[in-house]
Amino acid sequence: MEREHNLIPEDTLWKRFLYRVIYRADTRLGMLFDVVLLFLILASTLIVMMESVPQLDKRFHFTFIVLEWIISLFFSIEYVLRIMVVKNKKSYIFSFFGIIDFLALIPFYLSFFFPITKYFLIFRMLRMLRIFRIFNLLDFMNDGYFIVRALKNSSRKIYIFLLFLIIFSVIVGSLMFMVEGGRTGFETIPQSIYWAVVTVTTVGYGDVSPITPMGKFFAVILMLAGYSIIAVPTGIVTAEMRNKRQNLEKICERCGNDDIDDDARYCKQCGKKLA
Amino acid sequence: MEREHNLIPEDTLWKRFLYRVIYRADTRLGMLFDVVLLFLILASTLIVMMESVPQLDKRFHFTFIVLEWIISLFFSIEYVLRIMVVKNKKSYIFSFFGIIDFLALIPFYLSFFFPITKYFLIFRMLRMLRIFRIFNLLDFMNDGYFIVRALKNSSRKIYIFLLFLIIFSVIVGSLMFMVEGGRTGFETIPQSIYWAVVTVTTVGYGDVSPITPMGKFFAVILMLAGYSIIAVPTGIVTAEMRNKRQNLEKICERCGNDDIDDDARYCKQCGKKLA
Amino acid sequence: MEREHNLIPEDTLWKRFLYRVIYRADTRLGMLFDVVLLFLILASTLIVMMESVPQLDKRFHFTFIVLEWIISLFFSIEYVLRIMVVKNKKSYIFSFFGIIDFLALIPFYLSFFFPITKYFLIFRMLRMLRIFRIFNLLDFMNDGYFIVRALKNSSRKIYIFLLFLIIFSVIVGSLMFMVEGGRTGFETIPQSIYWAVVTVTTVGYGDVSPITPMGKFFAVILMLAGYSIIAVPTGIVTAEMRNKRQNLEKICERCGNDDIDDDARYCKQCGKKLA
Amino acid sequence: MEREHNLIPEDTLWKRFLYRVIYRADTRLGMLFDVVLLFLILASTLIVMMESVPQLDKRFHFTFIVLEWIISLFFSIEYVLRIMVVKNKKSYIFSFFGIIDFLALIPFYLSFFFPITKYFLIFRMLRMLRIFRIFNLLDFMNDGYFIVRALKNSSRKIYIFLLFLIIFSVIVGSLMFMVEGGRTGFETIPQSIYWAVVTVTTVGYGDVSPITPMGKFFAVILMLAGYSIIAVPTGIVTAEMRNKRQNLEKICERCGNDDIDDDARYCKQCGKKLA
Repeated sequence: MEREHNLIPEDTLWKRFLYRVIYRADTRLGMLFDVVLLFLILASTLIVMMESVPQLDKRFHFTFIVLEWIISLFFSIEYVLRIMVVKNKKSYIFSFFGIIDFLALIPFYLSFFFPITKYFLIFRMLRMLRIFRIFNLLDFMNDGYFIVRALKNSSRKIYIFLLFLIIFSVIVGSLMFMVEGGRTGFETIPQSIYWAVVTVTTVGYGDVSPITPMGKFFAVILMLAGYSIIAVPTGIVTAEMRNKRQNLEKICERCGNDDIDDDARYCKQCGKKLA
Repeated sequence: MEREHNLIPEDTLWKRFLYRVIYRADTRLGMLFDVVLLFLILASTLIVMMESVPQLDKRFHFTFIVLEWIISLFFSIEYVLRIMVVKNKKSYIFSFFGIIDFLALIPFYLSFFFPITKYFLIFRMLRMLRIFRIFNLLDFMNDGYFIVRALKNSSRKIYIFLLFLIIFSVIVGSLMFMVEGGRTGFETIPQSIYWAVVTVTTVGYGDVSPITPMGKFFAVILMLAGYSIIAVPTGIVTAEMRNKRQNLEKICERCGNDDIDDDARYCKQCGKKLA
Repeated sequence: MEREHNLIPEDTLWKRFLYRVIYRADTRLGMLFDVVLLFLILASTLIVMMESVPQLDKRFHFTFIVLEWIISLFFSIEYVLRIMVVKNKKSYIFSFFGIIDFLALIPFYLSFFFPITKYFLIFRMLRMLRIFRIFNLLDFMNDGYFIVRALKNSSRKIYIFLLFLIIFSVIVGSLMFMVEGGRTGFETIPQSIYWAVVTVTTVGYGDVSPITPMGKFFAVILMLAGYSIIAVPTGIVTAEMRNKRQNLEKICERCGNDDIDDDARYCKQCGKKLA
Repeated sequence: MEREHNLIPEDTLWKRFLYRVIYRADTRLGMLFDVVLLFLILASTLIVMMESVPQLDKRFHFTFIVLEWIISLFFSIEYVLRIMVVKNKKSYIFSFFGIIDFLALIPFYLSFFFPITKYFLIFRMLRMLRIFRIFNLLDFMNDGYFIVRALKNSSRKIYIFLLFLIIFSVIVGSLMFMVEGGRTGFETIPQSIYWAVVTVTTVGYGDVSPITPMGKFFAVILMLAGYSIIAVPTGIVTAEMRNKRQNLEKICERCGNDDIDDDARYCKQCGKKLA
């Protein structure tokens, strides 16, 4: 997640003023702006959801359309302003939130040509991730970064694990295809692979389940395997999180103790005041 | 969980006596009182459950009503006494158990006006959490606090994780709505979001499951993602638990810091040598 | 798990001989005895299973009965001998395996009076836990004790967690009973509690699933909660296992390093040879 | 996973040249060869999958057959060359990838005699594990070894856990057979065991679910148990992973010990100071 720290406001006075309102939440107006934004994001998401419900759409079709227009217009102006008021425009446009702000707009304009894309407006929800900044929830933001970082750091291991899992599922699915020999839900190999993934991830819809005793025996083995395998991603992420718990650089100068909590002010081993 | 340590009995003799009976379990009468209480809580819970079963309710309707009256009366008197015998009444009323004791009573009185609220009596079960005190199970109580504290300390991270998960489910559900295009179980976006949550949490009822090959392919990706994501809350709580394996009784005498590791020799907040 | 270490053979020569055959696996005859035993346990278990399948029972009913008689007789004689050849008979009878050996016998004799108890013969499978001793698989046995010990050590926390979970499920089930108002699968509170447990443990059979939008919304919250809660037992056991990894008593005398693996012969910090 | 490090090319010039092309990816030709190989593996897997779909097979039957012939011929030649160009032929043939290369070929030749074996061609997918070498993704390879090693190291504990789990499932299944007394899905003990495994692993297809109140009560207990038990494999693997966060390249020069922690300064086996 690219942070927006390094954005610099333009020099003109009104741009600098707008910058504070739009990007910061340390003034009353900036706070208000963010709360309105949050409200509009939620409203927009709810409208898209409700539009998909025939009963509601029939009754409020026109209202929904008008509201969508208003919100989208507001977002469009906001997006243009966001670009205008910062000096390093590219930094914003290609930042994490810059891309999301953009993605939150296109579906609206695209939907004139391809109506189905309207539902992509739901991506606007991602803008909600800004929520923590709004209320100045630094602790929450840090914890958010903590989770994202832990996932990012273990992503390589998780990709490999998923590759293993996919190969495993493909092979198991194919074997099951031979075992169940074209019974309902196992008509083709891709179908059987679908079943294998449903089983190994312990989701278990039950829309496809083994029928023959041999198939059930096979499924039992797969389930037990899946039950043990689930430990792998957990182990990976847990190990990563453990690692990122303490300030790893901190060491007590006097006794060399390096097991120092983030909030410690004195060394718990020798009592020395920490820098 | 607010502890009831700091409750002080009133000065009058009989109030002091009642205080020991009601709040403590170190006398035979106090013990008896608590056992009776536990039994009544269980009885009350079972009665509410049985009342909901038509066959049982038909046969024992009158018995159930009478028993409910007796138990609720007992609880009411007990609640009043609990308030009477302590000096700092507010400390009790707004303590964790004080609120629960109150919540365990209202549904009974409310049910005269709104019969449906009767079932809220099931909240009486929460009173059972006092169980450990009754049998003086200090170790159990400490372990209970341990779990609660670990959850509390990681609650912020878990909230963020849930926010991520909800946004993720909403987006995935909407995409699936477009893919499965209104087939059974995917008629609306909210319906599809329900399916997404059922899938990503690996619950997998199977009341809604993908039908088209494209939808199944999509579901497979979601399941694999869910299988990896489950590692996150586990990692958070595990890391927290590892961290909190401290002597819960240890408190720094000087600054009152109670976050003290087992191997600490000095308080990490004020540097005082620990006993 | 009570170990059988402390059993002392009787003084008579033939009893001492039998003791070595039955209790130990360090002679060829002792080895043979154990392998035969293992084979009979497996055979007995399979027979009970097959007897429950009507097609098989019809065809092989007589064979099954005869085999069951032979195996049970063998086990009976073995049990008597096990008692006879040791001095401290009570130590055996009330040891973990002594009780299992006994439980493996009664169902056979009870089944003369109560035929249904025959199926309890399946408990014979527990005798298989002796398997590690047979092949002298010390490492496996140690790992088995490791798991049992970790579970035992965290059992108190897990009991509390289960108590929390049960109270939680009862309350959620009751609320759902009010929400779904007697629809299929939610006819009574106990039924709804069953659904709550099926959901919160992420089993999700789908025999009962929410029908109303309100019920689905409620279920979504429950699933997300269950998804986060699953972290608790994992965290408990993981923290426990981590704890039991190293010899916690070992400390390097020279540098005080206490992070010493079980298999270490030299301190990894200062290179000192460990005692 | 046997690594292919120790393969030595033959002395002849063209064999040495082919060795570099086939086994290494440090020349442009070697890179090209690997990419083609990867492409053919994927193509082969997809063809087998598509052949199992009647609609596709009807239309493209001949194309599929021809492509399969071409790819299998290519793989056959490649396999022969792989053996020819290395000196220590046995090292390759019995290495992890050597065996897989062989298994990827036989189904094709066997399918002339036993058509069903054709689907075993799906095992070709395992050849994809070479993927990391192709793109010189050392980090990915190390992480892959990390996961495999963690699983290998905890495999003994996981086997024991699975043995416990199987015994547990058999016993629970048998008890449930007695409880549900031959109702749908519980007709025989093996059927009931199938249900027990489906439940305890939290897969929960729902093709079999308890019907009687007694059975549901029993199932609830099993689910709660399964929910707690899932912590065991997770704990095992997590503890193992924590343990193995070492620099995988570090090896003690004196004694060859490769189990070296990141923070170790001396070899824990022989006490040698590490570089």
